[in-house]
Amino acid sequence: MLRTHNCGELRIGDTGKEVTLCGWLQRSRDLGGMTFIDLRDRYGITQLAFNMETNATLCEQARELGREYVLQVTGVVTERSNKNPKMPTGDIEIIAARITVLNKAQTPPFTIEQDTDGGDELRMKYRYLDIRRDMVRRNLELRHQMALETRKYLHEQDFIEVETPVLIKSTPEGARDFVVPSRMHAGQFYALPQSPQTFKQLLMVGGIDRYFQIVKCFRDEDLRADRQPEFTQIDCEMSFVTREDVLETFEGLAKHLFRAIKGVDNIRFDRMSYQDAIKYYGSDKPDTRFGMRFVELDHLVKNKGFKVFDNAELVAGICAGGCGGYSRKQLDELTRWVQRPQIGAKGLVYVKCNADGTYKSSADKFFDQDALKSWTAAFDAKPGDLLLIIAGEAAGTRNALGELRLEMGNRLGLRDPKSFACLWVTDFPLLEWDEETQRFYAMHHPFTSPVKEDMQLLDTEPGEVRANAYDMVINGVEIGGGSIRIFDRPLQEKMFEVLGFTPAEAQSQFGFLMNAFQYGAPPHGGVAFGFDRWCALFGGSETIRDYIAFPKNNAGRDVMIDSPSPISADQLKELHLKNI
Amino acid sequence: MLRTHNCGELRIGDTGKEVTLCGWLQRSRDLGGMTFIDLRDRYGITQLAFNMETNATLCEQARELGREYVLQVTGVVTERSNKNPKMPTGDIEIIAARITVLNKAQTPPFTIEQDTDGGDELRMKYRYLDIRRDMVRRNLELRHQMALETRKYLHEQDFIEVETPVLIKSTPEGARDFVVPSRMHAGQFYALPQSPQTFKQLLMVGGIDRYFQIVKCFRDEDLRADRQPEFTQIDCEMSFVTREDVLETFEGLAKHLFRAIKGVDNIRFDRMSYQDAIKYYGSDKPDTRFGMRFVELDHLVKNKGFKVFDNAELVAGICAGGCGGYSRKQLDELTRWVQRPQIGAKGLVYVKCNADGTYKSSADKFFDQDALKSWTAAFDAKPGDLLLIIAGEAAGTRNALGELRLEMGNRLGLRDPKSFACLWVTDFPLLEWDEETQRFYAMHHPFTSPVKEDMQLLDTEPGEVRANAYDMVINGVEIGGGSIRIFDRPLQEKMFEVLGFTPAEAQSQFGFLMNAFQYGAPPHGGVAFGFDRWCALFGGSETIRDYIAFPKNNAGRDVMIDSPSPISADQLKELHLKNI
Repeated sequence: MLRTHNCGELRIGDTGKEVTLCGWLQRSRDLGGMTFIDLRDRYGITQLAFNMETNATLCEQARELGREYVLQVTGVVTERSNKNPKMPTGDIEIIAARITVLNKAQTPPFTIEQDTDGGDELRMKYRYLDIRRDMVRRNLELRHQMALETRKYLHEQDFIEVETPVLIKSTPEGARDFVVPSRMHAGQFYALPQSPQTFKQLLMVGGIDRYFQIVKCFRDEDLRADRQPEFTQIDCEMSFVTREDVLETFEGLAKHLFRAIKGVDNIRFDRMSYQDAIKYYGSDKPDTRFGMRFVELDHLVKNKGFKVFDNAELVAGICAGGCGGYSRKQLDELTRWVQRPQIGAKGLVYVKCNADGTYKSSADKFFDQDALKSWTAAFDAKPGDLLLIIAGEAAGTRNALGELRLEMGNRLGLRDPKSFACLWVTDFPLLEWDEETQRFYAMHHPFTSPVKEDMQLLDTEPGEVRANAYDMVINGVEIGGGSIRIFDRPLQEKMFEVLGFTPAEAQSQFGFLMNAFQYGAPPHGGVAFGFDRWCALFGGSETIRDYIAFPKNNAGRDVMIDSPSPISADQLKELHLKNI
Repeated sequence: MLRTHNCGELRIGDTGKEVTLCGWLQRSRDLGGMTFIDLRDRYGITQLAFNMETNATLCEQARELGREYVLQVTGVVTERSNKNPKMPTGDIEIIAARITVLNKAQTPPFTIEQDTDGGDELRMKYRYLDIRRDMVRRNLELRHQMALETRKYLHEQDFIEVETPVLIKSTPEGARDFVVPSRMHAGQFYALPQSPQTFKQLLMVGGIDRYFQIVKCFRDEDLRADRQPEFTQIDCEMSFVTREDVLETFEGLAKHLFRAIKGVDNIRFDRMSYQDAIKYYGSDKPDTRFGMRFVELDHLVKNKGFKVFDNAELVAGICAGGCGGYSRKQLDELTRWVQRPQIGAKGLVYVKCNADGTYKSSADKFFDQDALKSWTAAFDAKPGDLLLIIAGEAAGTRNALGELRLEMGNRLGLRDPKSFACLWVTDFPLLEWDEETQRFYAMHHPFTSPVKEDMQLLDTEPGEVRANAYDMVINGVEIGGGSIRIFDRPLQEKMFEVLGFTPAEAQSQFGFLMNAFQYGAPPHGGVAFGFDRWCALFGGSETIRDYIAFPKNNAGRDVMIDSPSPISADQLKELHLKNI
């Protein structure tokens, strides 16, 4: 090794030792008689000291060294006169005796410190320099730990990790595939997996009754904020289980990770139906760190002459505790907030619950104090609270109110990133109707089993059928989702029929799976977690990019290596392709 | 859970318990009064008993069940009258009280037993059935364990696993890339990585001083036997290390795996230069489980009138211990064996060392007993041994003799798959001259550092420069390889120049790496192991396909899902491509 120790481990007890360290020059201070250099590596920072009096040549050499130079330094560990209690190595410094420049460095394009002056694109282009920053490195370390603990837990639960192929087959159902032209088979393509779904089901057919994989998946989508064309899943599947078994097993995983990574031991999982999630939170991934559940007011407010309510499909509101003192200006601002196109409400009706037991509302003209009192009773509101009410088409109203609820949660400090509310959302609809293409799409995917009781509705009212599907939601973030799967051919055929596949299309795309079902497929179900997202949640960041070593930008480009990029005419020709 | 126990865990101590098992019907035997079913799952086989006298309905139901039906069975664990000591569950059986058919099965296309009647292609097409076979499942379990132990060791050595991107950039150097057309950037392509080489080097520049990843890699090669277009590497890199540090660290990994997986504790690693490997074994991956090293005879045999030797660039042989009794027929057969085109020798000269101290050789006419005696002395041969000598152009002779050596090792039982000989082959040439394209190619890759002492030969005699590279060889199998890397821009530029790149080409393809070197790159080196191959070696099989859950065939096809396959005209159009 070119070093005897790293830059994070030396302590007062090491005083007197001769050591050799390697690392990057973080900072250097020239105090005339003395020069100090902070030497940085992955493990920490150690101060090097150079004394003009005792070793002028070396001290002058040290003064010539620039930021981010790679150094090898030998010297003696010495107690500092001026200790720095903020640094683990702050009690000591190295009195340098020898210094070797292992590599020089140009001035980096941004400062490599906690608070950097580099913009997003610049730091992406020089990602290898960004990774030197403590925070980015710690994110990668967190990710490593999360993967390690995930594997540990699942291994202990008898899961085995099986690698499924990356070069698979394109199936138009679902999101858009990335494809890979075949050189050996002209006109044919592989596709990159959007998930190992069918393969993990085949592993169940193959008797591997507990499978997992931490695996790259790919989606050629128009990138929304914080989506990546390649992302990582914790993909899992189990045989001979009910829904309850799956939920318990993966609650166990979550609890293990909370304990091992976050040191949190009191995690509890709630259950909520999709229907309730929408009705009370306006979202299929409610943030349940706080209440502020929706109250529907239709029965109290309709037919009182207020057209906004009378013409609405739904009138519903939330109670913002302690916000009764909001000024006119604040309420106007909040109204404009809900009217923004991203939120899409027409307006906002408020009721202030005054300290003296009276009410002040923007709908005073139509509702007297008794009427307003009946509303506040429905919310169980107290003096000093503020009701915020939205009316309109039901789905849009719930959505807008859901956003408003989150916003009020933020303003009231109810969304503490250090507290965690976990739940399973269950009983999703099996199918979604798409107006544009006039057909049903699978809400989860076509392999999800309907709930048993709803099975007979598949022919008559497919839109009403509930799926045996579930999402894990933590603090309003969908961390993962899964389902109990269809495992017999006739039901799978029926499902494809409902989705508008001809039997020939179903066979050509998914024949291998339906064939497999005929050779003794066990009942099975599973789940897939967004690993990047889970890391971000545990790391306390909202963007998954911070947890990916080499992410792509929002246009799907890797700006560091400049990819995608043109390929040679020869390469294209070998692939039997032409650019158009 | 649909079961209380699995099919491998019940023992005599469980007698009397009511249990529920799930699994596949492996075999059923109808003995008139009794029917027995072997129920199989991932964990083992348990016998179910049905009694015609006590429960005729159930027994008759059981008789109707076919092979590979998926069953759920409830019954009481009972001591067997006829115990089977070969099965872990052989002391007990389940007296079945209730049986549920979870799924039916068609007759499988091959028998799902240790010795199957299914051919390769058939078992590939129905891989999900093949996986039910003990042996295939055990291979996947071994692979899981190997990955787990690899991660455990490397984590304990402070390595962190970092995921590098799969959608990267095509670089014509090296093997052929698989490419992925970009929909959002017309005429541009991503490439799938042949290895994460440049990314792991960038991680070193980023200060992640110990990186690893178990990662899929891709090569669009014309598939030779036992190559797969996608394969898995254990990819590793370290900073601030010498070659010796890298070798020690990964010897440590190998020893850990030998201990944890094979229970072998006495593993020792030898070192051998590439030059010696070629000179003494005719191979850069010698099987050193046995000796039989080459002896060069030129100084003893030249200019004695035997043209075969006189005209040869090299005369060399091996000593096959105890084969002095080979018959004329056997020797003729061996001669034909080395003359096959795959081996390519012109002929074979033998010397039998007779028990009475005399010699019998096919070259008797040119060499008297004294001459032959001098040869046998060079080999340190004893009475009863057999010398086998090949002459001709040096490289071809060494190659043929290397093959002959392995063949004789096989015949003499010297290649015991249960014994392990490990070594590092070092000091590979940096460059290989290619006659066809009249240029040098990097023997390892263009990022490999020359050995320091040879650096000055880069300009004058590039072909003589040794690389600071090493391969790990176990039992004649190249398990992995790596090198100390170039980490400064001028040397990297020089290397590309020697490889015939113009500065513009080098910059356009590898500019991101050379730029990174200018911002403080540390000295670094690493290694990559062929994970599939290592699994196969430990599993005792020669073919990596047995250790891959869903392999492709030799034409790169997944015959199970039928991929690659055509994509729709719309998909192609979106990708700005046309088939030609």
